[in-house]
Amino acid sequence: MAFKIGLLGLGTVGAGTAEILLNPEGRHPLLQDITIEQVGVKSLDKKRSIELPTEILTTDLEAIVTNPDIDIVVELIGGLEPARSLILKAIEHGKHVVTANKAVMARFAPEIYEAANKAKVYVLLEAAVGGGIPIVEPLKQSLGANRFENIIGIVNGTTNYILTQMTQNGVDFEEVLKEAQALGYAEADPTADVGGLDAADKISILASLAFGGKVKREDVYCEGITKITSSDISYAEKLGFVIKLLAIAHKLPQSEPEKLQLRVHPTFVPKSHPLANINGVNNAILVEGQPLGQVMFYGPGAGSGPTASAVVADIMNIVGVLYSNNKAEKLDPLLSCSPQNYCLVSPIEDVYTRFYTRFLCADVPGVIGHLGMAFGEHDVSLESVVQIGFQGELAEIVVVTHKVREGNFRSAIEEIQSLNAIKNIPSIIRVL
Amino acid sequence: MAFKIGLLGLGTVGAGTAEILLNPEGRHPLLQDITIEQVGVKSLDKKRSIELPTEILTTDLEAIVTNPDIDIVVELIGGLEPARSLILKAIEHGKHVVTANKAVMARFAPEIYEAANKAKVYVLLEAAVGGGIPIVEPLKQSLGANRFENIIGIVNGTTNYILTQMTQNGVDFEEVLKEAQALGYAEADPTADVGGLDAADKISILASLAFGGKVKREDVYCEGITKITSSDISYAEKLGFVIKLLAIAHKLPQSEPEKLQLRVHPTFVPKSHPLANINGVNNAILVEGQPLGQVMFYGPGAGSGPTASAVVADIMNIVGVLYSNNKAEKLDPLLSCSPQNYCLVSPIEDVYTRFYTRFLCADVPGVIGHLGMAFGEHDVSLESVVQIGFQGELAEIVVVTHKVREGNFRSAIEEIQSLNAIKNIPSIIRVL
Repeated sequence: MAFKIGLLGLGTVGAGTAEILLNPEGRHPLLQDITIEQVGVKSLDKKRSIELPTEILTTDLEAIVTNPDIDIVVELIGGLEPARSLILKAIEHGKHVVTANKAVMARFAPEIYEAANKAKVYVLLEAAVGGGIPIVEPLKQSLGANRFENIIGIVNGTTNYILTQMTQNGVDFEEVLKEAQALGYAEADPTADVGGLDAADKISILASLAFGGKVKREDVYCEGITKITSSDISYAEKLGFVIKLLAIAHKLPQSEPEKLQLRVHPTFVPKSHPLANINGVNNAILVEGQPLGQVMFYGPGAGSGPTASAVVADIMNIVGVLYSNNKAEKLDPLLSCSPQNYCLVSPIEDVYTRFYTRFLCADVPGVIGHLGMAFGEHDVSLESVVQIGFQGELAEIVVVTHKVREGNFRSAIEEIQSLNAIKNIPSIIRVL
Repeated sequence: MAFKIGLLGLGTVGAGTAEILLNPEGRHPLLQDITIEQVGVKSLDKKRSIELPTEILTTDLEAIVTNPDIDIVVELIGGLEPARSLILKAIEHGKHVVTANKAVMARFAPEIYEAANKAKVYVLLEAAVGGGIPIVEPLKQSLGANRFENIIGIVNGTTNYILTQMTQNGVDFEEVLKEAQALGYAEADPTADVGGLDAADKISILASLAFGGKVKREDVYCEGITKITSSDISYAEKLGFVIKLLAIAHKLPQSEPEKLQLRVHPTFVPKSHPLANINGVNNAILVEGQPLGQVMFYGPGAGSGPTASAVVADIMNIVGVLYSNNKAEKLDPLLSCSPQNYCLVSPIEDVYTRFYTRFLCADVPGVIGHLGMAFGEHDVSLESVVQIGFQGELAEIVVVTHKVREGNFRSAIEEIQSLNAIKNIPSIIRVL
């Protein structure tokens, strides 16, 4: 039996995917039954690292998604359009879809799954989160017996590389960013990565899978790493933490109806925490649930080979199902997705967390007293207040709170900002 | 649609499994379609933590595996017999099988898979390795695009707990073992765990999955942790290592026909290695392949809840397939297993590895010279030779070799043992 693939895009991941499919030896035998029927590219003239018969290349992507010979369309062009329309058209024409497109799936999953369920085809997206790390299918197929409580991930390799470099070499953000751009770890316009937007796409996908509801992408609170300074990194170190950009989906206990917290922000992570040791461009996703406890998935979060490994896994999963059962009247409910209602998301003000805050203030008596009073008035209790030293004429005070309601903390900060002695609050970072 | 389970065994994992199936709220909706039809127990009178209608309990396990109403038999009684026969009989009667039985699957997988493929039923075993950690299904379904090179796992929680305690508290093996037995982390007869036999069962299962061949359990070289002393732990620490019991399946590069190394032994693991930080009863499995690179799966390797999570995952996987396709003529080749030939396993003498060795010798001049000569004659080159101190009248010398052929190293050690000055070689430990 031969199963035919239509590949949209032959960039880094597309070429990696073709490379695997063209060289099945030594891999799972099922790969020998999979052939590349057509490949959609921007330009036919471009030099490529991979040799493909020229007659299967085309610039007509529509022709691929409507080609009656093709069983599975693999969308690797990225971006919102025409990716979304091509996916929907492929579904409409009865193709199964494999995509690595986190931007599309974070925004249009409900529309896409609805169409797919109607057409009785699968849409798989292992490569959209965590690169080569199996996380999407394990969440769907291996962990479904659990009541999920937390998904906490380092899901953006660029920012993890930058924070790791800042931590290990004491270098400032801007400098590491330039270096990361030179190495190809960060894009020319790094906003999606360093602003946390990419991580927010990914956590909304994982949250939807784990909690079985639709997630509105705009419900994810999102803060990037651009304001993290080497001072913060070094205070974190002294206090027993490392700073990581975490993407968090947390189910509020005893919420009725069920409510989630969805947020992406730099976080003080205790050095003993499993996520604290995830360095460089690696990703890791921690899943907590009952009765499972805590499991963690770790590996390369990006790159041609790892991401292609995930893309081909999805292709094989679909081919495995088709092989045993080409004309099923129902989809396998573990491989398909039918999120029903939108998840209720609790506002960031209702998050309970610890905060690290750094203040620059005039070196006058009573400042710490004023700070403590203002926090106390808003029910923010403090774990530690330390005057660390001076930046020029200003005293630098670092405060770590106990677990407090974020709304209360914000009110306290607002009041503190109006204090005469407080000149600046350069850093507010949540603590895991 | 309701799918009916026959549960063999209502011990720790059996009770955990029933607990999940009886309380589907907040878990994957598919669980609502699964009911427990019968439960096989040793005694009907025993007090149990879980409430089940007495009419579904039976001591007649045969009646369960032949019950025409049952779709899936879940074998959780452990041990070789009657587990093996019951699994085979269930298959013969057209039941799908879920098992947590590593001992049976490490020894009888070829027979069981052959019967299952003939009867067109699935035999899933996620819970047999790594407790709650998804590793079996990810290997089968998520990583199949890769050419596997290494599976390296900490797959036995008991020994990892003991080694962690020895490392963190400087306590000797015997003392920690007693403590672990008191806590229920080690069994009264701890041989299977501390002797490495349990880990050997598990690595033979994983190797068979990753490398697609049958594995003879007796081909796994196996050394336990009973000889590890607190001296070794403290030398490891000084040299930048921690000692872990690793289970390793390694494909020899450029071997034709393909050859594997399969081995379980205590190992010096560099502190910076991802497996070095896996502590306590936790397990972790590192998978290396091309083009993936390295991924690691981490979590609770045992316990009622985590293991039950894996058991129910397998049940759900089968139910998902049955739901969409009750009368498939072929099995999904990703969910089923059809290992063809036996894997060729290279003898331990042909392993290339580094060695840490500790010698006790008379404090006479020239000992280090004699050691160095003997190693050199057998092509064993040394990375470091350090005289650490004294134990009584004897000098303690620690040698770390470069990567050498184990056969050569063994010949050198044999020669060294015959040297007059060498009184004892208390420790030989491989280095990762």
